[in-house]
Amino acid sequence: MEDVITLDYGSGGQKTAELIDSLLVPAFSNPALNVLGDGAVLEGNGQLVFSTDSFVVSPWKFPGGNIGRLCVCGTVNDLCMAGGLPKYLSLSLILEEGFPLSCLQEIVASISEEAARTGVIVATGDTKVVEKEKGDGIYINTAGIGFLRAPFLGKDRIREGDRVLLSGSAGCHGAAVMMARAGLVRTDSAKPGNALVSDCAPLTKLSAAALASGTIRLMRDPTRGGVATTLNEFVENGPLCIELTEAAIPVDPPVAAACDLLGLDPLYCACEGRMLAVVDSKDTDRVLDALRSTPGGEQAACIGVVTRSRPGCVLVTTRLGGRRLLPKLSGLQLPRIC
Amino acid sequence: MEDVITLDYGSGGQKTAELIDSLLVPAFSNPALNVLGDGAVLEGNGQLVFSTDSFVVSPWKFPGGNIGRLCVCGTVNDLCMAGGLPKYLSLSLILEEGFPLSCLQEIVASISEEAARTGVIVATGDTKVVEKEKGDGIYINTAGIGFLRAPFLGKDRIREGDRVLLSGSAGCHGAAVMMARAGLVRTDSAKPGNALVSDCAPLTKLSAAALASGTIRLMRDPTRGGVATTLNEFVENGPLCIELTEAAIPVDPPVAAACDLLGLDPLYCACEGRMLAVVDSKDTDRVLDALRSTPGGEQAACIGVVTRSRPGCVLVTTRLGGRRLLPKLSGLQLPRIC
Repeated sequence: MEDVITLDYGSGGQKTAELIDSLLVPAFSNPALNVLGDGAVLEGNGQLVFSTDSFVVSPWKFPGGNIGRLCVCGTVNDLCMAGGLPKYLSLSLILEEGFPLSCLQEIVASISEEAARTGVIVATGDTKVVEKEKGDGIYINTAGIGFLRAPFLGKDRIREGDRVLLSGSAGCHGAAVMMARAGLVRTDSAKPGNALVSDCAPLTKLSAAALASGTIRLMRDPTRGGVATTLNEFVENGPLCIELTEAAIPVDPPVAAACDLLGLDPLYCACEGRMLAVVDSKDTDRVLDALRSTPGGEQAACIGVVTRSRPGCVLVTTRLGGRRLLPKLSGLQLPRIC
Repeated sequence: MEDVITLDYGSGGQKTAELIDSLLVPAFSNPALNVLGDGAVLEGNGQLVFSTDSFVVSPWKFPGGNIGRLCVCGTVNDLCMAGGLPKYLSLSLILEEGFPLSCLQEIVASISEEAARTGVIVATGDTKVVEKEKGDGIYINTAGIGFLRAPFLGKDRIREGDRVLLSGSAGCHGAAVMMARAGLVRTDSAKPGNALVSDCAPLTKLSAAALASGTIRLMRDPTRGGVATTLNEFVENGPLCIELTEAAIPVDPPVAAACDLLGLDPLYCACEGRMLAVVDSKDTDRVLDALRSTPGGEQAACIGVVTRSRPGCVLVTTRLGGRRLLPKLSGLQLPRIC
């Protein structure tokens, strides 16, 4: 590891994993934490799911959402992916001196709206203010509690032959934020017909639909590091391999165009309203049908299969018929995407 | 309210209350949040207590602790004060590019040590990195879950004649951080015999001792805004008054000296390991004895009484026999104290 923190450590890719594995997990090792799921499953009075995320996205407003909407969806989605039904959020604001109150009001209104839509309540909170140039307008942390409804999810449940489903097109959030940051799209243009918008949305209904329609091994929302990094986390250090079919992966044309322009790969761009699910192959069609008939899941697709061909790796068969390794994000592609 | 966020909004005093009351509570109104306790009590499978705090203390290391120790104690104490037995923490780091890894290791070690000492586990986490000058080394958010063990606490339970207890001397944390910030004490001098150290400590045992020995109406740890601001929150907008006796309030001589030097009032300086408790007068001696025989509570004192003499206010009888109003902290005394 480096001697000082570099932006790479926040990428969601290999450097982030290094920081977590070599510093954080050894320091706090316990069964709830060590599985490194999107949320921790807690023993208590019944089983709880607990998750947290800090949001430092820049700019704070982007096509299709803002940091307020994101801070609800991000934590709600982590709870859903861990098999929880989201119930309660905490909300902690770190405001930079000089941040316009009107912007804070807009963000708070988005949080309130998104929480109501998603069926969670903000139960507790905290507000801190730091001096100018010790922050960047606004950072938000949310933590969430849900009640466990799917107790049997985990990497260790994945089997050869399982199918990999993606609930919608890849990379929309990352591409939208990067275009907004580059000043190439209007941040207030989240209207129907606008070509490039974040997919930021709660996965409450999609995850419920999946769980109700088949045997789900594992669910995860591909945020920082994108689809490629998340799938690597499914199989790394294990005997299994995920083989993807590039042509089967839904990528919206405006996202593909934006990625071309910015030199990015949509498979490494964050989603904030998509889920990856590994399912028992016999249930593939049923789960796909359930996702496609749920709002937000219309483009759901089977994008790959679990094999043993190259243990611990993700392979992709390209449109031209070649096969290449799809490694974990290494270093920094998109800083401060969420 | 102002058009932009000023540092006052983070003071823990009137401006912070204004932001919470006029923007945040209306946006998220629900029974768990609206009581504005240190933690929210949640209905679910059994009753949970849920709390969050972001820590932006500057400098990150101070006599008697560091941001790591503080981020455990702060949230643990909020859970204790809300009547919970702390069980689980989330840990979310916002790191500034360039922050020395050795400092992060020191902080993580403190978190680990303090969590173990306090009987909580870090169950889930998140790490973000922001560019240089978009942060200040390290900010940490923790959220905590506890199980409710004292379901009947609240401002509405305070009665005329109740006594106000303080578990130890006032203002140590605030004074220690301000002296460290001014470069007037060594930040690594948390040794026995060092005159001025933060009181940063978990309140798990002290709160348990109090609850087990008498009828407690309400507990609160006087952090930002100090003893004066917290007591104002107990009685504001109600028919009752708190009358304090200045001579009864324990203030360590080094804290008094530091406050004189810096132009501060110890009653407005944050504590991070003290609790205020309003108790039924018939139980005063029993609760005081219990606190005094618990480590950290040796200096516990009865500092005041609940009356009706000036509704909604906190009064203090000075050493010279005069009586003055002790208002809520207005504006900024100590920025970034926690």
